[in-house]
Amino acid sequence: MDIESVSGNEAALADAVESALRGLGRLEVTRNGDAVVARTMLGRAERIILAGHLDTVPLPTVAGSRGTVPVSWDGKVLYGRGATDMKGGVAVQLAIAATVPEPSKDITFIFYDNEEVAAVKSGLGRLARENRELLDADFGILLEPTNGTVEGGCNGTIRFEATTSGLAAHSARAWMGENAIHKAAPILARLAEYEPATVTVDGLDYRESLNAVKIHGGTAGNVIPDQCVVEINYRFAPDKSPAQAEAHVRELLSGFELVCTDSSAGARPGLNAPAAASFVAAVGREPLPKYGWTDVARLSEMGIPAVNFGPGDPLLAHSDNEHVDADAIRECLAALTRWLG
Amino acid sequence: MDIESVSGNEAALADAVESALRGLGRLEVTRNGDAVVARTMLGRAERIILAGHLDTVPLPTVAGSRGTVPVSWDGKVLYGRGATDMKGGVAVQLAIAATVPEPSKDITFIFYDNEEVAAVKSGLGRLARENRELLDADFGILLEPTNGTVEGGCNGTIRFEATTSGLAAHSARAWMGENAIHKAAPILARLAEYEPATVTVDGLDYRESLNAVKIHGGTAGNVIPDQCVVEINYRFAPDKSPAQAEAHVRELLSGFELVCTDSSAGARPGLNAPAAASFVAAVGREPLPKYGWTDVARLSEMGIPAVNFGPGDPLLAHSDNEHVDADAIRECLAALTRWLG
Repeated sequence: MDIESVSGNEAALADAVESALRGLGRLEVTRNGDAVVARTMLGRAERIILAGHLDTVPLPTVAGSRGTVPVSWDGKVLYGRGATDMKGGVAVQLAIAATVPEPSKDITFIFYDNEEVAAVKSGLGRLARENRELLDADFGILLEPTNGTVEGGCNGTIRFEATTSGLAAHSARAWMGENAIHKAAPILARLAEYEPATVTVDGLDYRESLNAVKIHGGTAGNVIPDQCVVEINYRFAPDKSPAQAEAHVRELLSGFELVCTDSSAGARPGLNAPAAASFVAAVGREPLPKYGWTDVARLSEMGIPAVNFGPGDPLLAHSDNEHVDADAIRECLAALTRWLG
Repeated sequence: MDIESVSGNEAALADAVESALRGLGRLEVTRNGDAVVARTMLGRAERIILAGHLDTVPLPTVAGSRGTVPVSWDGKVLYGRGATDMKGGVAVQLAIAATVPEPSKDITFIFYDNEEVAAVKSGLGRLARENRELLDADFGILLEPTNGTVEGGCNGTIRFEATTSGLAAHSARAWMGENAIHKAAPILARLAEYEPATVTVDGLDYRESLNAVKIHGGTAGNVIPDQCVVEINYRFAPDKSPAQAEAHVRELLSGFELVCTDSSAGARPGLNAPAAASFVAAVGREPLPKYGWTDVARLSEMGIPAVNFGPGDPLLAHSDNEHVDADAIRECLAALTRWLG
């Protein structure tokens, strides 16, 4: 954490990770940009992935915040940018590499860059395009923070802009115009009345949501507005494809001009894989659904069942108060060591 | 029009007007800031006001627009900033001063600054505070553009901000938050359903309107919005005070947080004054109601019945295509000359 690694600036940290892994002398190490892949080559029947991103969101700008680099460490709690998201998880990956020389399954360690920025920059996406053969595995664990519980799959996300059009006029002669903001009333009403579903997928309950996240319209206090734009975000359970999610929203808002601006598929929980079952047993806690989108969706797209499992509270991610308990890191490491021992 | 006179920069034009009026040698001329008041002192039974503002809104920025200074003039149509609003009217004032030496009523010519900006800067307001005695009159004519028709009184205007509050949360866990944009749905629905009244005041029909003019809410595409603000403008007939107009909107939007941000009283048409009746007869057209707010409301507040009457199309005011027909100016001048002759 003392090595600043805001997205796009991961080189120094990737160098340190690569050097540590090569120093162990028993891993096949590949560097791609600022991503590092290290594999045990023990000829085991199963191969699993332990993956984590090296980058963080920008450093906090709040004066006096404890989120700045250098970090603070009192022996129990580690404060600083990236503590939760996800240096704790990366620490577990490195500790497994260093302390479990003879795992029961072959392991592919993946450390990658640019997770916190636009999907097109993703280091994991680049590896999938350029070094797909290095990623072959039966099961994946992404060490994003989950408070030490297995969180399966993730909801998908899709965004729309709903636009209403009118005719500008001076508000003293409003009848010469058409009010685009008034026309947005039924869009907001349908969203407000909508009752989001909870969908059970492979035994886990995925709670959906559909929301207006932004709205803007009008140009001046004395002009009838000729346009109003409502930005809408639908978080949909992984039983649906993005195309099915889009059709659902278009049906709900039929009659309105709707442009899809962005979408990412969800991921089914992947708990049916044999490796997943034994892993869940080793962790010893009931698995939960993951609501936020994570890179398990990317592994899932490659045909690799994957779950989230890591130390730290995901609600602290990106906050000025970001921190992780040392015990949470140790417990996560212990569970993986039991499973791989 | 060749002398740029955007609000706050009227000094050169006020100098030119003052000099022209003093040069006639038969008017009592007073300068106050960039306002000029010139009065005939003929001891007539009645005194009327001919008023107009010297300033314009800022020059057009559209490349190739004909609204720039210097202006264009083909002998029939005068193009340029201020042509309609209201150099045409000011030209009529100056022509009356120059060509009607013995009017049947005493005339108070008022040329004033800062009409196009915040009410607190108004040159007419300043004259009312500092030289109230110069403004005494039985009837006022404001030479704002009305296409040469007498337009009586004006609607009042009042603005509100209606704010809804919620609770921010990540949109992947929307149920942790409360959506402030969704809460605005009934505000928009009530405004959309509202049927504005038409109110007859002193024989003229005033058409009201009530509109959302702006809306904004939300901070990011993945955050449940915690605030939404709807700006509302009510244009109300001059049978109501601003307080009555406010009560009307508060009743319609009861249950919502509503802050009144701005209001201006309307003005009754003032056609009951004896001078008004003879003036309407001289113009020879059916008077109409004025919808937009003008300084007749300010004269009305001082107890001076007043109407709008001037050359040019008010819909061209402030536009990049602002222009006025020379014939419109001549017709307006002819009507006033008939009445004052």
